Amino acid sequence: MTGPARSGPVVVTGGAGAIGSVLVRTLLARGTEVRVVDDLSSGKREHLDGLLDTPRCSLTVADVREPASYATAFRGASAVWHLAANTDIRRGSADPRIDFEHGTLATFRVLETARQNDVPRFFFSSSSVVYGFPKVFPTPEEYAPLEPESLYGSGKLAGEAMASAYAHSYGIQSCLFRFANIIGPGMTHGVLYDFFEKLSRDPRRLEVLGDGRQAKSYLRTEDCVEAMLLAGDRAIGPVSVYNLGTTDRIAVREIAEKVVAAHGGSARIDYTGGDRGWTGDVPQQLLSIEKIRQLGWSPRYSSAAAIDRTIEEMRAARGRRA
Amino acid sequence: MTGPARSGPVVVTGGAGAIGSVLVRTLLARGTEVRVVDDLSSGKREHLDGLLDTPRCSLTVADVREPASYATAFRGASAVWHLAANTDIRRGSADPRIDFEHGTLATFRVLETARQNDVPRFFFSSSSVVYGFPKVFPTPEEYAPLEPESLYGSGKLAGEAMASAYAHSYGIQSCLFRFANIIGPGMTHGVLYDFFEKLSRDPRRLEVLGDGRQAKSYLRTEDCVEAMLLAGDRAIGPVSVYNLGTTDRIAVREIAEKVVAAHGGSARIDYTGGDRGWTGDVPQQLLSIEKIRQLGWSPRYSSAAAIDRTIEEMRAARGRRA
Repeated sequence: MTGPARSGPVVVTGGAGAIGSVLVRTLLARGTEVRVVDDLSSGKREHLDGLLDTPRCSLTVADVREPASYATAFRGASAVWHLAANTDIRRGSADPRIDFEHGTLATFRVLETARQNDVPRFFFSSSSVVYGFPKVFPTPEEYAPLEPESLYGSGKLAGEAMASAYAHSYGIQSCLFRFANIIGPGMTHGVLYDFFEKLSRDPRRLEVLGDGRQAKSYLRTEDCVEAMLLAGDRAIGPVSVYNLGTTDRIAVREIAEKVVAAHGGSARIDYTGGDRGWTGDVPQQLLSIEKIRQLGWSPRYSSAAAIDRTIEEMRAARGRRA
Repeated sequence: MTGPARSGPVVVTGGAGAIGSVLVRTLLARGTEVRVVDDLSSGKREHLDGLLDTPRCSLTVADVREPASYATAFRGASAVWHLAANTDIRRGSADPRIDFEHGTLATFRVLETARQNDVPRFFFSSSSVVYGFPKVFPTPEEYAPLEPESLYGSGKLAGEAMASAYAHSYGIQSCLFRFANIIGPGMTHGVLYDFFEKLSRDPRRLEVLGDGRQAKSYLRTEDCVEAMLLAGDRAIGPVSVYNLGTTDRIAVREIAEKVVAAHGGSARIDYTGGDRGWTGDVPQQLLSIEKIRQLGWSPRYSSAAAIDRTIEEMRAARGRRA
């Protein structure tokens, strides 16, 4: 690796999002200068409350598909954390252009902007969905074939592929993180968010997509950020790939029951049926996290504990709002 | 699979190219109606000489990035063979947009046009470069990690990923073919073409990129087309991936010596040195072809025989032109 020192300013795309803002906060706490690029479509300025007061943190409100609007933030940066994405997988299946443009195209534009500005390192929030519906659980990073089932998933795999090409052709070192379901405060999508929204509209009934037996692992945002930073600090070689998740998984049915219990326990749960919640849904997910554990990381929260903690936070937050 | 019968008209993008035109000729011989979409940038109308005379073959001159200019050719089609691509990998490394647009973006547009027109099957010319520089030779289809070294390679992997998503989300069955180096008449790029061009400019000296020890396998166009048609006929399930190559490989040094011998043997061969010919070049390539062989196919030409035959044809063609 040649290029600026690792300690220079870093760019975080999607830095006003639920995961990005925790990363921004943690980077600032480590003394790093952080430049957030976010179009505030799903990210929120309030996620950066208190952080933008320091001169070491700035926000450029820009769409990552339009480099002219944010390229200056890349000048002199030592790394780009590319977390911006369409966060709503189901919406993508109705209009494939959404995931293509906010996934594949956006990642190309970010990588190209990094190259043009000599940014030496690239970190990417990929996803367990690159595996499609694998035959091996827990699924290791070397699993093949990679057969994504949604355009969201193909956008993540395309992003990984482009990062690999930029690493080998242009010397931009990359770390690719295949996320399990990440949960924590500030989420604007996902199963917990959906269940809370549905119950706030109709407290008597919770509709669950699929038969409720879909079972996945859930990682808390702060565990996820800690793992990414550790892997980034330790990265050697042009391309590293890490699964980030927990060692347990939890069924949608169980999550539904926990959410209903948190709402007083009286709502009826209705399942729409079928083994998949929606087109492109992957019904089973459990990642092998041996590789990242070997760096000394392990999640503080199991999936079950992460769900419980997040339900508690969401209930408290809604109580404050009500 | 639902949708039109397999025997309906098929679209071939890049059908005026060196590989595409052999596919078109073979499909017509099987009685299939063929609609060629080609922008004639590297493809040539003369490759379709005699074929366009039949009403069963048509040519739409169009850039695959612009669906409005060719979408009518997709109406009622039973399959799309997507072979159009930037054929010059080295040019792509100088300007990443070329491979992104002619690879990833073009494949997205073709898939989306197929979806909008209810085309039930998609065949894709992927490449051995999706493996990057693998640690296992011969490399099987299930090899991981897939770490492409060039934007051309990431475009092929992105194309595979999108085809997988369209298969699982929209029911478009796909066959993905990872090509070794394909050679035959009518090529406008590649090592043999380059060597002939160089010697026609300066018959005394042949410059070879790299140290000449790069060794790859070479498959004749007609063997490649036969394998694709067989795999297409036999395809079951949403996504199939096949390596297409030979069981031997041949060093660039040996190819250079054969080409020089075909030119009278007096040219001096100069090596530029280094284990790679250019940025993103993969110095060693040998694919496992066990999977396609199990369908009953095997190549009629070894790599060495394919090289010899093609040199002979190129020499004869240039003799006629001179």
